Amino acid sequence: MATRLSDVAARAGVSVKTVSNVINDYPHITAHTRAKVEAAIADLDYRPNVSARSLRKGRSDFIALAIPEMASAYFAELGAAFSRAAKRRGITVLIEQTEGEPAAEQMVLDGMRGQLIDGIVFSPITSSQAKISAAVGSGKPIVLLGERTTGGTFDHVAVDSVQAAYDATTHLVSLGRRRIAAIGVGGGGASGTGAVRRRGYRKALKAAGLPHDPALELAGTGYHRLDGAASMRALLELPEPPDAVFCFNDLLALGALRTLADAGLSVPDDVAVVGFDDIEDGRYHSPSLTTISADKDWLADQTVALLLERIAGSGEAARRNLTVPYTLEIRESTAG
Amino acid sequence: MATRLSDVAARAGVSVKTVSNVINDYPHITAHTRAKVEAAIADLDYRPNVSARSLRKGRSDFIALAIPEMASAYFAELGAAFSRAAKRRGITVLIEQTEGEPAAEQMVLDGMRGQLIDGIVFSPITSSQAKISAAVGSGKPIVLLGERTTGGTFDHVAVDSVQAAYDATTHLVSLGRRRIAAIGVGGGGASGTGAVRRRGYRKALKAAGLPHDPALELAGTGYHRLDGAASMRALLELPEPPDAVFCFNDLLALGALRTLADAGLSVPDDVAVVGFDDIEDGRYHSPSLTTISADKDWLADQTVALLLERIAGSGEAARRNLTVPYTLEIRESTAG
Repeated sequence: MATRLSDVAARAGVSVKTVSNVINDYPHITAHTRAKVEAAIADLDYRPNVSARSLRKGRSDFIALAIPEMASAYFAELGAAFSRAAKRRGITVLIEQTEGEPAAEQMVLDGMRGQLIDGIVFSPITSSQAKISAAVGSGKPIVLLGERTTGGTFDHVAVDSVQAAYDATTHLVSLGRRRIAAIGVGGGGASGTGAVRRRGYRKALKAAGLPHDPALELAGTGYHRLDGAASMRALLELPEPPDAVFCFNDLLALGALRTLADAGLSVPDDVAVVGFDDIEDGRYHSPSLTTISADKDWLADQTVALLLERIAGSGEAARRNLTVPYTLEIRESTAG
Repeated sequence: MATRLSDVAARAGVSVKTVSNVINDYPHITAHTRAKVEAAIADLDYRPNVSARSLRKGRSDFIALAIPEMASAYFAELGAAFSRAAKRRGITVLIEQTEGEPAAEQMVLDGMRGQLIDGIVFSPITSSQAKISAAVGSGKPIVLLGERTTGGTFDHVAVDSVQAAYDATTHLVSLGRRRIAAIGVGGGGASGTGAVRRRGYRKALKAAGLPHDPALELAGTGYHRLDGAASMRALLELPEPPDAVFCFNDLLALGALRTLADAGLSVPDDVAVVGFDDIEDGRYHSPSLTTISADKDWLADQTVALLLERIAGSGEAARRNLTVPYTLEIRESTAG
C-alpha cells in the first residue's frame, strides 16, 4: 500500500497539517521541524500526490510542444532542446506530432482537450492565420514557432529566414558560383518556409546581378532526403546544370549530396552545397555540410521562458516576437 | 463565446438531452433527429467538451511514449511510427524524453502524475528491474520496450538483440574478415544494450573459430556519432587495427565512417562497417550503411495494439513478450 501523509506525520511525530505545510513549502516552519518531516519522507519513500498539489496551485508543471514531424532531425533536436530547457525550470515537456494534419492542429489550438498542461508551444503547418487567431477558446497560453505565423495575435518565435537565405546564397556567390539552384521552394504554401526562404535567395541573386532562372528553382514534394535526391537528379539533367545548390533544409542537402556522389561529381569543386538547420548528421557527413545554424538551445530556452511568463500572468502584456540568432557554418561542402 | 450544448439544441429544435444522446452515440435516435442535430453542430461549429466526455467513458484516448532521447534518430523514427500507429486507432501519443534520468523514469512509472492518459509505453534506461516491478501504484497499463526489461511483470516488446548481433558479426566473418572490432559494448550497464549485443558478437566469433581480442571491444562513453568517431580513432591506433567493425547502433557507425574518411581509408576495402537500427541517415550516407533493420512500424503497431487491449481490459491475462522481426540490410559499407 502506498505511504500516506498520516504515516509520515506519525513517523515524524508531528500533525498531518504540519507535514502538508512542509510539502507545500509554507513559511513559519522551524528548521528543526522541517528536517524531521523531510527525514520521515525520505525514510518512508513518500511521494506527495502531485496531481492534487497541482490542482491546489492551479498548475501541472507540464507543457506541450506540438511539432509537425519528429523523425525530421531538426524537430527531433529541437524537441530535445525544449525538454532540457524545461527541465532546468522543473517543467516536463510532452511532445505531440501533428504531421501538419488539420484535425491534429485544431486539437492543439483547442488546448489539447482535457490534458493537464499549463501551456503550449506550437509549430503549425496547415492552420491558417485566421484559424490560429480565432483559437483562444481554451484559454491556455500558446507560443507559436516558425515562419508561417507572423502578424497574428500570439507570441511568436522564429529565425529571420529571408535574411538567412540571403546570407546562404550570398556565400555561394562569393565563391564565384554563377548558376545557383534552390531546392525546397514549395514547402509550406504561400507563406511557408519555402516561399520565405525563396525570397531571400532571389534577393541575393538580384543583389549580385545574377539572372533569375526558374529552371533552377525546384519545389520537390517534401523536405526529406528522398526529395533532395530527386530534385538534384532533375537539376543534373538540365542542359546547363548548376554549379551550386542552396537546399532549404539539411535533409534535402544530404539527399542532394547522395545524388552528386552517385553521379561521380565532386563537392564542392563541381557543385557546392549549402543546407539549413545544422543537424548533427550534416556535421559528420563526408563532405561535412555548410549550413545555416539557428541556435536551438537559445530558441528553446527563450520560448520556454516566455511561455512560463504567460502562464504566471507576468511579463509585458503586449504580444512578443523573438528572433532567433543564427550563423552561417562554412564546412567542406562549400569550402573544400 | 464558445457554442454550448443549449445553442445546438435551440438551433436543431430539440432538447439538450437529445443533443447529448446524439453526441454520445446512444441508440434509439431516429435518423431524422440525428441529421437535424448533426446539421446544427456543423452550422455552429460546435465542439463537444471532450474532457468531460472522456471522464464519462473513463478514457482520454491519449497514451504516453517515454523514450530516453528524442534527438537520437532511432528514437525519433520510433516516436513517429508510434504517432502513426496510434492515429490509425484514433489515439494521440504524447512523447516524453526521460534522458534516462531516475527522477524522470520514476515519474513515468508512477503513471505520469495526473496526466489524463490511458496507458504508457516506456523504454527505460536507469530504472532497475526491481523498481519497475514495484511500480504498479498508478494502475495505468504499461508496456516496456528494449533489452533491459526482460523477465519482469510487465508486457514487453524487444528485438532479439543477441541473435541480431550474431547475424551482423557472422556477415563480416562471411566476407573473410578476421579482426572484427565491436563499438558500443558499454551501453546501458550489465543488462543493457551493450552487454546483450556483445554476447551475440562474441558468440559469432566463437562459432567462426576466431580469437576473442579484448582490445577490439570499445565501450565508448555514449551512443552518438561523436563516440563512434572517437572509438574508431582508438582502433586505428592499435598495433594491429581491425579489418571490420560492428557498431552497436547506426550513429556510432556513422561517426566511425567519418573517422575512416578522415584517415583516407577505404570502406569496405580497408575496413567494413555494420551498424544497428537502420536510421534514414545510414541509407543516404556515402557509403550507405549495412545494418540490422528492426521493423519499427511493426513494433509500434503491435505495441499500441497490446497497450489498447490492456486499457480495454481485454486480451490474454498473462504477461506477453513480443519479439520484433528484423533483417540484415546489406549495403555499400560491407558490399562495396
